[in-house]
Amino acid sequence: LNKVFADLPVTIFEAMSQAARDNNAINLGQGFPDDPGPEDIRRAAADASLNGYNQYPSMMGLPELRQAIATHYGHWHGLKLDPMSEVMVTSGGTEALTSAILAVVQPGDEVVCFQPVYDSYLPIIRQAGGIPRLVRLEPPHWRLNEDMLKSVFNSKTKAVLFNNPLNPSAVVYPREDLELLARYCQEFDVIAICDEVWEHVTFDEHKHIPLITIPGMRERTIKVGSAGKIFSLTGWKIGFVCAAPPLLRVAAKVHQFLTFTTAPNLQAAVAYGLGKSDDYFLSMRKDLTRSRDRLTKGLESLGFPVLKSQGTYFLTVDLSPLGLNESDTEFCWRIVKDYKVAAIPVSAFYEQDPVTSVVRFCFAKKDQTLDTALERLSDAV
Amino acid sequence: LNKVFADLPVTIFEAMSQAARDNNAINLGQGFPDDPGPEDIRRAAADASLNGYNQYPSMMGLPELRQAIATHYGHWHGLKLDPMSEVMVTSGGTEALTSAILAVVQPGDEVVCFQPVYDSYLPIIRQAGGIPRLVRLEPPHWRLNEDMLKSVFNSKTKAVLFNNPLNPSAVVYPREDLELLARYCQEFDVIAICDEVWEHVTFDEHKHIPLITIPGMRERTIKVGSAGKIFSLTGWKIGFVCAAPPLLRVAAKVHQFLTFTTAPNLQAAVAYGLGKSDDYFLSMRKDLTRSRDRLTKGLESLGFPVLKSQGTYFLTVDLSPLGLNESDTEFCWRIVKDYKVAAIPVSAFYEQDPVTSVVRFCFAKKDQTLDTALERLSDAV
Ligand SMILES: CSCCC(=O)C(=O)O
Ligand SMILES: CSCCC(=O)C(=O)O
Repeated sequence: LNKVFADLPVTIFEAMSQAARDNNAINLGQGFPDDPGPEDIRRAAADASLNGYNQYPSMMGLPELRQAIATHYGHWHGLKLDPMSEVMVTSGGTEALTSAILAVVQPGDEVVCFQPVYDSYLPIIRQAGGIPRLVRLEPPHWRLNEDMLKSVFNSKTKAVLFNNPLNPSAVVYPREDLELLARYCQEFDVIAICDEVWEHVTFDEHKHIPLITIPGMRERTIKVGSAGKIFSLTGWKIGFVCAAPPLLRVAAKVHQFLTFTTAPNLQAAVAYGLGKSDDYFLSMRKDLTRSRDRLTKGLESLGFPVLKSQGTYFLTVDLSPLGLNESDTEFCWRIVKDYKVAAIPVSAFYEQDPVTSVVRFCFAKKDQTLDTALERLSDAV
Repeated sequence: LNKVFADLPVTIFEAMSQAARDNNAINLGQGFPDDPGPEDIRRAAADASLNGYNQYPSMMGLPELRQAIATHYGHWHGLKLDPMSEVMVTSGGTEALTSAILAVVQPGDEVVCFQPVYDSYLPIIRQAGGIPRLVRLEPPHWRLNEDMLKSVFNSKTKAVLFNNPLNPSAVVYPREDLELLARYCQEFDVIAICDEVWEHVTFDEHKHIPLITIPGMRERTIKVGSAGKIFSLTGWKIGFVCAAPPLLRVAAKVHQFLTFTTAPNLQAAVAYGLGKSDDYFLSMRKDLTRSRDRLTKGLESLGFPVLKSQGTYFLTVDLSPLGLNESDTEFCWRIVKDYKVAAIPVSAFYEQDPVTSVVRFCFAKKDQTLDTALERLSDAV
């Protein structure tokens, strides 16, 4: 069977969620909220299931959703997208990324990735015959620098995959880092595939800047978004690809043979959701900021050194000062069994030379859930 | 950009549906019903959207749906499947097929396909580095024979892709053909990827026999099904993969990086649907048989030679006796423009040496829709 896939482990998110179920643990591993998601958007899906269209929509997505996506990015970022030639709906962010990678990468192409790296990127790059070139990012700042880029960009570089806000590190990259990356993309004529699924989940003064809005990047960037992340409905699996027509056209050809299209009743509900006023997005951020602060304070008071989260559902803890004598992975398997709290070891996001002292916790949970987890963890250190 | 995909046309189904919209035509092209689908199943989806789980389900699918799929095939075919190790839910039949192909095919592997061939198969085989070996099936019977198989199976054959009931030909293969194919699969140690999405849509005395139930095939068959086809909810994009654990395990690794998982509210509704009594499936077949007969008679009375449909939403018409002096493709583009009826040219399902005289019509439509289409077509010959 196919060697690219046959020996891969089950994704750490699934494995840890299974361990949480098996151990009756509180699941602060895989990134999903423990509330049901916005009631009005779920009602819009219910209405569309009963009264709306449930047969094949257009392969590229419902026109009303493509229009809503274009309008949304126009409003938030001044990004002008033509909904018909520059926007495609996919069955989740994962399919959007896979479509983008398979559209761009051919055998022998080099693709720059940053570790910590989301676990779907490397297998799909390899399936395409591409050669990943890994940059290693490090705590506590996880920032890019010119030496890193210089060491991996070359004439064989076809694409760069860039995740911002960065899961699991919870960093929102400042303009300076984006401009540096954009300069290298232009110098080496490289396509940027931007995993921006966490774009709306940012805190404090940190604001997400889409790489596609950096000068020179409009024609060479494939932007990936996710309604599941934007609306805390992670199961719905509605993603978006936005790109200039020559790029989108090829990603669409991949998409048509990966899933062809996506449930129109859920698409209609997402189109409704994207029409919400700014207040919705700001109050979502405020709620998540509160949850972040609650878990941060709680972990700190237990003696865990927390690396402050700038975005995503996640915060990370650096175990190294604790002198625990165990890796992040050992720590996570110990706490899910002994303390009934699941978390994700950040080393799972490294293929080479892992950072082994950082653990990721999901705080997109009810206060009660976080408090119980903290109680359980109080004996873990 | 990736040569496998960059130069592909938009799928004929999408192109013809677009032409139908542009020309204000009745769409008997792409296979979908013009009714909204079963009300109780759509209500189950609405309920699950409001009251059910809308966050990440298990990567392999909701346990209740996997159990329902296993029970369903046990009941209809005496096929015993372990729901946990032999059943996976995907985002539609297309994703199921793509997961299966990418799990099995590696560079240099030969893959036997039968023309007419569904348009996703060949690009995905090529993306995997596989080499399609095409068998040409012909009207009016579209049957397999030993010479065909002898000419393509060899020691490099890794897999065969087999669609039964066959879209667009509307053939339900008899046991004899399945046993012939099974014998070659065993003799050459080949994996069968079976696209059986039309399994429930069969007419008259024709019954679908899953290839996996033919002796010797249980361990070497990957069976693909589709809730969208079973329940006439084509937009929902819920597919199934059933296979022995060693095969399913690898298909699951592909799936985890194509879409990861599928909307749990829709999965829950499909699980409900699979619990329906035999009556539901039998009356669905009866309704579609009526529609098939209505369109068959109408076309015949206009002078079109109809090839009798044994299954699927489709029937085909052989233009050759009409002496029209145009190909199936020319005919289809003429009638969508001039007579406002869309149909699919069967030559679009051939990569080499096409059959160019056969046109496919979808009859899964209201009587009124079929009657108006027939009226419009009365001047087309
Ligand atoms: C596709 S499961 C992983 C979800 C997620 O984004 C995370 O937990 O990192
Ligand atoms: C994925 S669109 C094609 C639907 C279908 O099965 C057909 O029309 O043949």
